[in-house]
Amino acid sequence: MKIFTATHRQSVAAYGELRLITEVRRWLGDVSPRAPFGIGDDCAVLPPTKRAQLVTTDPVIHGQHFDDAVPARAAGAKLLKRNLSDIAAMGGRPVAAVLSLALAPATNVAWLREFYLGLAACARRYEVKIVGGDITQAPAGFFGAFLTLHGEATSQRVITRNGARLHDHLFVTGRLGGSRRNHHYSFQPRLAEGAWLARQSEVAAMMDVSDGIAKDVQALTPTGLTASILPSALPVSIAAKTAACTSHRPAWVHSLTDGEDYELLFVVRARTDAAKFIARWKKQFSTPLHRIGHFSRKIESGHVDWKTLHGYEHLR
Amino acid sequence: MKIFTATHRQSVAAYGELRLITEVRRWLGDVSPRAPFGIGDDCAVLPPTKRAQLVTTDPVIHGQHFDDAVPARAAGAKLLKRNLSDIAAMGGRPVAAVLSLALAPATNVAWLREFYLGLAACARRYEVKIVGGDITQAPAGFFGAFLTLHGEATSQRVITRNGARLHDHLFVTGRLGGSRRNHHYSFQPRLAEGAWLARQSEVAAMMDVSDGIAKDVQALTPTGLTASILPSALPVSIAAKTAACTSHRPAWVHSLTDGEDYELLFVVRARTDAAKFIARWKKQFSTPLHRIGHFSRKIESGHVDWKTLHGYEHLR
Repeated sequence: MKIFTATHRQSVAAYGELRLITEVRRWLGDVSPRAPFGIGDDCAVLPPTKRAQLVTTDPVIHGQHFDDAVPARAAGAKLLKRNLSDIAAMGGRPVAAVLSLALAPATNVAWLREFYLGLAACARRYEVKIVGGDITQAPAGFFGAFLTLHGEATSQRVITRNGARLHDHLFVTGRLGGSRRNHHYSFQPRLAEGAWLARQSEVAAMMDVSDGIAKDVQALTPTGLTASILPSALPVSIAAKTAACTSHRPAWVHSLTDGEDYELLFVVRARTDAAKFIARWKKQFSTPLHRIGHFSRKIESGHVDWKTLHGYEHLR
Repeated sequence: MKIFTATHRQSVAAYGELRLITEVRRWLGDVSPRAPFGIGDDCAVLPPTKRAQLVTTDPVIHGQHFDDAVPARAAGAKLLKRNLSDIAAMGGRPVAAVLSLALAPATNVAWLREFYLGLAACARRYEVKIVGGDITQAPAGFFGAFLTLHGEATSQRVITRNGARLHDHLFVTGRLGGSRRNHHYSFQPRLAEGAWLARQSEVAAMMDVSDGIAKDVQALTPTGLTASILPSALPVSIAAKTAACTSHRPAWVHSLTDGEDYELLFVVRARTDAAKFIARWKKQFSTPLHRIGHFSRKIESGHVDWKTLHGYEHLR
């Protein structure tokens, strides 16, 4: 199904704002609480919290984060999952979201319904309520959904990107690279893994990999240090190997630079035995976990040279 | 200054994402706290709250909520003020915001700087911190800024749109209509007024007027009742009178249908003496306040007939 339609009666313009909002609430079903706790008042009301709150915002824009090859339901789910991955990266649990939609008048209502059903199914699965939003007209050809997700800490600690020290281990979940094939929307946010990691005192810092390790690891790297990663230690996905066949670049380069992996990249204290840490992990999760390197003063021989690799930079 | 530029080196594309984010933090200055309480980690962290939290989301999109006639600083301030008006309508106070930006590569950096400076000045004035955000590339010609604002209740009570009863008074702040002249961006959100109203037990329901009273009052009107408003009781703005000269419709019609007034429309119990209520108000505020009508079973003779008037409906 196409996102835009040439047939007026199938378009959001034929529905108008008020009828469309009624439909949206029907599509969301039990994921949309009644006002004032949900859609329908000037603000959504959330109860007081005892724990630190987490807030993140990420959109999906047609032509940028998904295209016509991605099913509408998967695009709706991706919108929430991108934000869930950020909550996971702080060791939090998601609570509630608001959604601001900007859409061209020719947006197909049937497509939009699928988008919302995908969003609602994902929200139900991760116990997130959609508590508010806005629908605004955008120029022809534009569809953007801008979600802000609220969560809270699952333990006393919120894990940030800061905290790595010299010799600390660098770990990553899952397998990386080639996400454009379908991983960029079929991924699973690592919420249970993130919450578990936040409870392990030897985990010093964490983030999710959205633009590729080559770019993202810089945010974990303290001033004066560098991340030393052996190419052979990188968990390369099958999609990265497929991409390597046509790009004629090594699969491990794809695993560092393709982006949209939505895996957790985290730092464990140097004193921790990496093999024992992985053994403890395997008792909890089937998600792959690999030690890919450590922090050092200089890039060591045979390790990845960051000067030659770049992750995905927006607006370039 | 134009929002888009044909000169590459003046565009956000020439800056790239990382340098642009550095600039954005510089433009925001003290309005942008350090990570993890602000920009720079996967999520922003907000402290636990004792009071009910309020969340609202509203964008500004070029060509929709502002055009080239609106100064960039005013557009940036409008983005926050639209959301502040929603917090005011629940009787809350604002706390922190996240901002998701979708912009064409040809967006002029100098224009964007002005936009952020206007946003920052407004945030400073209302003591709001900008704690997170996202910048994403959009198709040529598009600029949209999607803000989610968090606030909290200022008293035990959060005022919602529900609560009006038969014979209750209907009040409105300020003067209405003709907002397209400049009120749509020069307005002042009624935060102090909203917080005061939330503490008055005789105030039963409240909302802000964003699409015009003709549309918005329906949300305050209980099933089976109607809002009876005398045209002569409406506080008509000078801009509405000016608009009436060219539209050949009465100024009071503009005051009900133009929208973007961002005034507070609220319900006071029938037992309250309206004149005494206004006298109490005048001890607190210089903002105009008028009783414009009441809730009745039927539209009474000489009162506004809602069937013939419509507020601003999006996507129509």
